[in-house]
Amino acid sequence: MTIIIRGGTVVNADRAFHADVLCDGDRIVAVGEHLEAPAGAQAIDATGQYVLPGGIDPHTHMNLPFMGTVTADDFYTGTAAGLAGGTTTIIDFVIPAPQQSLLEAYHQWRGWAAKSAGDYSFHVAITWWSDLVREEMGELVHKHGVNSFKHFMAYKNAIMADDETLVKSFRRALELGAIPTVHAENGELVYQLQQDLLKQGLTGPSSHPLSRPPAVEAEAANRAIAIANVLHTPLYIVHVSCKESLDAITRARATGQRVYGEALAGHLLIDDSVYQHPDFDYAAAHVMSPPFRGKEHQRALWQGLQGGNLHTTATDHCTFCGEQKAAGRDDFSKIPNGCGGVEERMAVIWDEGVNKGLLTPSEFVRVTSTNAAQIFNIYPRKGVIAPGADADLVVWDPEGTRTISAATQHAKGGFNVFEGRTVKGIPSTTVAAGKLVFHRGELMAVEGAGRHIDRPAFAPVSAR
Amino acid sequence: MTIIIRGGTVVNADRAFHADVLCDGDRIVAVGEHLEAPAGAQAIDATGQYVLPGGIDPHTHMNLPFMGTVTADDFYTGTAAGLAGGTTTIIDFVIPAPQQSLLEAYHQWRGWAAKSAGDYSFHVAITWWSDLVREEMGELVHKHGVNSFKHFMAYKNAIMADDETLVKSFRRALELGAIPTVHAENGELVYQLQQDLLKQGLTGPSSHPLSRPPAVEAEAANRAIAIANVLHTPLYIVHVSCKESLDAITRARATGQRVYGEALAGHLLIDDSVYQHPDFDYAAAHVMSPPFRGKEHQRALWQGLQGGNLHTTATDHCTFCGEQKAAGRDDFSKIPNGCGGVEERMAVIWDEGVNKGLLTPSEFVRVTSTNAAQIFNIYPRKGVIAPGADADLVVWDPEGTRTISAATQHAKGGFNVFEGRTVKGIPSTTVAAGKLVFHRGELMAVEGAGRHIDRPAFAPVSAR
Amino acid sequence: MTIIIRGGTVVNADRAFHADVLCDGDRIVAVGEHLEAPAGAQAIDATGQYVLPGGIDPHTHMNLPFMGTVTADDFYTGTAAGLAGGTTTIIDFVIPAPQQSLLEAYHQWRGWAAKSAGDYSFHVAITWWSDLVREEMGELVHKHGVNSFKHFMAYKNAIMADDETLVKSFRRALELGAIPTVHAENGELVYQLQQDLLKQGLTGPSSHPLSRPPAVEAEAANRAIAIANVLHTPLYIVHVSCKESLDAITRARATGQRVYGEALAGHLLIDDSVYQHPDFDYAAAHVMSPPFRGKEHQRALWQGLQGGNLHTTATDHCTFCGEQKAAGRDDFSKIPNGCGGVEERMAVIWDEGVNKGLLTPSEFVRVTSTNAAQIFNIYPRKGVIAPGADADLVVWDPEGTRTISAATQHAKGGFNVFEGRTVKGIPSTTVAAGKLVFHRGELMAVEGAGRHIDRPAFAPVSAR
Amino acid sequence: MTIIIRGGTVVNADRAFHADVLCDGDRIVAVGEHLEAPAGAQAIDATGQYVLPGGIDPHTHMNLPFMGTVTADDFYTGTAAGLAGGTTTIIDFVIPAPQQSLLEAYHQWRGWAAKSAGDYSFHVAITWWSDLVREEMGELVHKHGVNSFKHFMAYKNAIMADDETLVKSFRRALELGAIPTVHAENGELVYQLQQDLLKQGLTGPSSHPLSRPPAVEAEAANRAIAIANVLHTPLYIVHVSCKESLDAITRARATGQRVYGEALAGHLLIDDSVYQHPDFDYAAAHVMSPPFRGKEHQRALWQGLQGGNLHTTATDHCTFCGEQKAAGRDDFSKIPNGCGGVEERMAVIWDEGVNKGLLTPSEFVRVTSTNAAQIFNIYPRKGVIAPGADADLVVWDPEGTRTISAATQHAKGGFNVFEGRTVKGIPSTTVAAGKLVFHRGELMAVEGAGRHIDRPAFAPVSAR
Repeated sequence: MTIIIRGGTVVNADRAFHADVLCDGDRIVAVGEHLEAPAGAQAIDATGQYVLPGGIDPHTHMNLPFMGTVTADDFYTGTAAGLAGGTTTIIDFVIPAPQQSLLEAYHQWRGWAAKSAGDYSFHVAITWWSDLVREEMGELVHKHGVNSFKHFMAYKNAIMADDETLVKSFRRALELGAIPTVHAENGELVYQLQQDLLKQGLTGPSSHPLSRPPAVEAEAANRAIAIANVLHTPLYIVHVSCKESLDAITRARATGQRVYGEALAGHLLIDDSVYQHPDFDYAAAHVMSPPFRGKEHQRALWQGLQGGNLHTTATDHCTFCGEQKAAGRDDFSKIPNGCGGVEERMAVIWDEGVNKGLLTPSEFVRVTSTNAAQIFNIYPRKGVIAPGADADLVVWDPEGTRTISAATQHAKGGFNVFEGRTVKGIPSTTVAAGKLVFHRGELMAVEGAGRHIDRPAFAPVSAR
Repeated sequence: MTIIIRGGTVVNADRAFHADVLCDGDRIVAVGEHLEAPAGAQAIDATGQYVLPGGIDPHTHMNLPFMGTVTADDFYTGTAAGLAGGTTTIIDFVIPAPQQSLLEAYHQWRGWAAKSAGDYSFHVAITWWSDLVREEMGELVHKHGVNSFKHFMAYKNAIMADDETLVKSFRRALELGAIPTVHAENGELVYQLQQDLLKQGLTGPSSHPLSRPPAVEAEAANRAIAIANVLHTPLYIVHVSCKESLDAITRARATGQRVYGEALAGHLLIDDSVYQHPDFDYAAAHVMSPPFRGKEHQRALWQGLQGGNLHTTATDHCTFCGEQKAAGRDDFSKIPNGCGGVEERMAVIWDEGVNKGLLTPSEFVRVTSTNAAQIFNIYPRKGVIAPGADADLVVWDPEGTRTISAATQHAKGGFNVFEGRTVKGIPSTTVAAGKLVFHRGELMAVEGAGRHIDRPAFAPVSAR
Repeated sequence: MTIIIRGGTVVNADRAFHADVLCDGDRIVAVGEHLEAPAGAQAIDATGQYVLPGGIDPHTHMNLPFMGTVTADDFYTGTAAGLAGGTTTIIDFVIPAPQQSLLEAYHQWRGWAAKSAGDYSFHVAITWWSDLVREEMGELVHKHGVNSFKHFMAYKNAIMADDETLVKSFRRALELGAIPTVHAENGELVYQLQQDLLKQGLTGPSSHPLSRPPAVEAEAANRAIAIANVLHTPLYIVHVSCKESLDAITRARATGQRVYGEALAGHLLIDDSVYQHPDFDYAAAHVMSPPFRGKEHQRALWQGLQGGNLHTTATDHCTFCGEQKAAGRDDFSKIPNGCGGVEERMAVIWDEGVNKGLLTPSEFVRVTSTNAAQIFNIYPRKGVIAPGADADLVVWDPEGTRTISAATQHAKGGFNVFEGRTVKGIPSTTVAAGKLVFHRGELMAVEGAGRHIDRPAFAPVSAR
Repeated sequence: MTIIIRGGTVVNADRAFHADVLCDGDRIVAVGEHLEAPAGAQAIDATGQYVLPGGIDPHTHMNLPFMGTVTADDFYTGTAAGLAGGTTTIIDFVIPAPQQSLLEAYHQWRGWAAKSAGDYSFHVAITWWSDLVREEMGELVHKHGVNSFKHFMAYKNAIMADDETLVKSFRRALELGAIPTVHAENGELVYQLQQDLLKQGLTGPSSHPLSRPPAVEAEAANRAIAIANVLHTPLYIVHVSCKESLDAITRARATGQRVYGEALAGHLLIDDSVYQHPDFDYAAAHVMSPPFRGKEHQRALWQGLQGGNLHTTATDHCTFCGEQKAAGRDDFSKIPNGCGGVEERMAVIWDEGVNKGLLTPSEFVRVTSTNAAQIFNIYPRKGVIAPGADADLVVWDPEGTRTISAATQHAKGGFNVFEGRTVKGIPSTTVAAGKLVFHRGELMAVEGAGRHIDRPAFAPVSAR
């Protein structure tokens, strides 16, 4: 398939410029003014619009097995929803159970992901430690295109990694040229606070944020940063939700430490008043960890993106329907944690960030695509519009508007945390791997069309 | 015994003023100009000198059992050395072995301390957790005059308290009106770094500071502060040795959190060049944890004392002789950790702090006596010169000089980390519990004259 | 007159204790349990109440000449209102016009102050520079009991001191043993913003805070701190109103610099929503500089008081009636700046600070009295309840309540920024200079009973 | 002229990759593997070497008139020295005398620059204010390719801009789409300290750093940042030399403010011990402002470059020979301020930054070229190796070494602050505007070959 996108303003992380973009096969083959298109090329008019690198969501959970069920979105529906919103690549998580072989889990997830409509890759979680884990980390890096390992510092009595595991795994990642990532919350404190709240009879969703205050997140972020500092590894902190946690990153970066932070679209836009909603279903639908925070934290997160102390935006897309959420009706700590967003991320960040003058279009590209591609080492295959790159791009209509609603979304789960928000700035066309997958509101996602993206190791024994 | 100290300048934490001080029995009974002394009162001329509250060293380890032997100083020699230096009260540590009853350990230490020449009190360490520990914490507070509990965040595979223990113990302390204290170093990182250094054949004392870099201390300080913050307890951090750790305290205090920091005389004056000394004995004699640091950290600690982000000065007096230190000749991690200082603390801090214009005399009193008395709830019995207070005081000669040396010290161990330093500003007379115990260079300490000082609980369930 | 206050809890900055207090003449002569009172002594029952040092308000403007008129409160009504609220001493300001002799102005103010009902003292403003100013600063210190000089960094084209004046005056103050103080706002930026807003037709009171954003204050605070740092002088910053300004102080203090900060009762309790009020009179009544700020700043100021980075609380009491405020009906920059508060300061700070657990009673005393006395060198004459101190004290009823209203206040001006707030914790009795001046709601202030309090110089050429 | 560079690793700010680079005329026309070169193309073998964008030095003073003489380097010798070191573009300064027309000064400088061997552009200094200045700023932006204006906050009684000028000029720059830049030192404090030192008889070069301590620089940086913040302009701070100043930038950037910082090669590598040298000539040769600083500041500056809080590296190349420097033999404040470095910048930063693992090669490109091009709006014409860009590039031999010496340098002045340092990593070939200007140690600079580079305005009324 050959596609030529004409007349738009190409926006890369370093600059914006008028150019046509020619895609052939799964690659971009030319970027320039007044390109000649081969016969038979499909022409897309981007006049008055931007042409952006396809979005990369580095934090999703499709098809996540949980409490005997799985998330509402599988890899097909989840990646298809992403394509509709301009996101052409996701990085999901393989989460082995403690004592489970990493490779076994990896192959499970690869099997589930085969139906993806968009490209995907995997972080692998280190939920326990043994010589086998150590060995399999090597095999994943050397043979399976994995260059990042995730550590949950929360979820005591389940998948929480203690300091010993963090130290050993970070060090192993460094040997392998992989980057450690952490979910930063002190699981011991969360557990204690949950028990306290439940004992006091505070069992509803409004207790959820009380059990995970900012100090709990900041402690863990700071600890992971200290471990990375001492062991000379880089570090990526997922879903930074609060000022205190960002401050820990900012301090570390100011000393030259290579720490990267991710902000979720939800944390950037939604505040913690949702947990006060009298309707359990509504409040529970917003239960995720870390929780939504007060408004001052949202302001801080935007400042983090502006100042370069936060690098990527993601969603932690992890959808559960109302019945699933109801498992925690009598005990907030049993509400499955997770919210959607893979379809809305690009639009809400544009609307709140670019339209309000917080981010330039190039900065938008940086935090929705380029930085993720660079940090996880798939740049310039992804993250830039340039000859040779994958033909993943979005024609972005800065004047187009859309009112977000669960009623019209492509994702499953029947709920949308951005319900009712009208955004200005939406994808008019998405091209993924050189195929037209979304155009003028019509989604043409193809089950199984997505590819696993191998991410090569960095040079071993180097902190950058 | 009645003593009248005439003609000096009394220095309290809030101000300095000319006054005579009359002591009768074990109390101060009058402070004022031109006091009448009863017949038979011993008069001490303090003209041209300061009269200070007796020093309180809130961090010592006398008679500490260790590796089948004990520290060189027992409670008699250690407290006597303190009296010679103007320190009239120590707070030592009861350190139960994991699984040992706290009360059993407490009584052991009380037994050892009976020979003390000066007043003493005990922090009790929480080195493990069980319902018994929880219960005995209560008994210690209610019946035994203990209002502070210590937690070692270092010393993996020995007395290290993990997060679960910290959380449970801090919370219990709050219920009881006691203050938690921590030795802040991440034991997991220390262990890993020690193993790495030993594997590389770096077995000498110069590896000691490499195994405990500032980031390791700052991490633990920050973690303890976060736990205290979340649980609403006050917190006291012992031997803050580095800028990064102090920064964590400063940040917390700036938000109003009740965190207190202690600086050791050694950390204030000695830098890490000592570990590069070619003589094993010399370098090993300086092995303590946290280690001595680079000069920029000493500057920071003084700033901490000036700005009120550090509150007390102590010594961690814990003396081992050369033969004991030699246990680590082939493996730095086996060198018994500890240095002396109880005798020199007041003089070196005056010399470096007051003489150089960093501290006023009142601030000197605050950081050597008053703050410790207030934080550990024995004020105004201790820490101030006022009617009704214990007759613990020092006549301080600001023009007197002394050259510190192991050859002339009263403490045991045969080594002095301040060897050769000439200080200006020394005690000319020490009065403890109303008795003249040091005068014009002569030590008149009496074995067993010291008393256990009960420290009452704070109001329960209150962070201040 | 002899007064004995029985059965209360005496609260000083260092501790609280049960004691009777005996006042004779203008001094406290005894503090202790079960004191014998001489025959004829007036007994006041303080059972269940606190006995606090009389409040010191280090920032008031009584009888201030302004635009051809003067503030509503003169020294009699203003100090009398203070007595009713538990404040027994004020430090007001002599503000010479540029080119005016400092001594001439000083004597003017002394004349106006002769009618004071409570004790008073004066800061003198340096609004211009010449050899005469330099010389008169010396005379004020040596002969007139002045030890602090104020500098306005705002009010361009009027009394603004430029950097040259700041540098010369700070240096002169150091020589004299006086402390420089600053009103920290960048006058150049304020002027520019005022012009911009007026040009845009934004002439109402809601423009007032827009013309003086936090950055404008923080810049000046930082600049004054830098000048003090370079010249080795102490520094006192009046009415710190915002987090950014406090941060500058906190940073400086963390390096050991002797910088002190003052918070106004108004800034601690009132937010900037008042400027949005549709009624000009209401909004204009709140116009003062720096303006009231958003809620996050109030939280920060309380944290500053808790953490010891702010030291005193004041009011900037400077009352104008509605007709005076109306001068700026068409131009917000012409609204006379100033609000009241001398009568309410103690109660609102107790209510918001002590009742909410932010401050202990001792900390309350520190920030309402003791610190001001120490910084401005009238301690222990003022700021403590102890034998020998001035008999200035308040019996404080922690259970008493009062609803604040302009209708019932003693101050003039016809407006109260705390209108309608019900406070718990109020003075039941005020004793000033040994006289009963307020008792059970009855004010017995006597015109002319107040005394000028000489404040001696610090030791010359010393930063503390 | 057609040049093909074969076999090297092209390094851009975003990545490094193996590619040939084809230059034709003054442009790069192709970048790719195995490029075909036209007949007659000159081939340069870059095997084992890097191919970097030509360096941009955004801070030089060639031909600067000073005290009746001019700097040792004129635009020919200065730019030629730059080419020898891999720097192909400089941005110099037009510095009108107070009361002088900006345009008149601009044309003077343009005249002097006509002999440049390398490309050049100009910042224009605002040293006074009037309606004419305001008008001429517009003409410079609209017609003369100027998009940045410089303000000296130091040099009292000469070219110092006071706050009023800063406010008016920053605001005017914003209207015009130009970026304000500042030399940040508080001129009032410098003046006072100079007078003090001279009065004390401390007239030698060792007084120079004492007259300009870090607090003096940090104050001005903070003030300029505050002004930019309030007026919503971007800001570029030249020659950030100390931690305190960098901290001000870091704080501002963490809130999203668009502040950029420049570090000089000298400040990154040389410490203040040079001023203690007993030889006046040696010490005086290092006199520049801000002065060289203690080692902790150098560490901080590198951290600033690593963490993205500093953006560019420059030299402030401003050479005076020994006779010129001797003008201050009896008064350090009269030593002409300035040092060289345009020839050494790239090599010393590579050697200290890349070889020591502080910067990746891409980060090196960013801070020596790309960021300057982006901030001053000449990207992607400059600052990147890509088709269409100016053919300005350096073949960089990471194994090549050179020992820096005044004896072998191309710049004038007879002194080199990096004397004796052996660097590893040097240019083997420089191509400027498509011409081979330096190759294998031979400089082929052509007088007058350099071009003025117009820098277009940014969009008016926008802070980015």
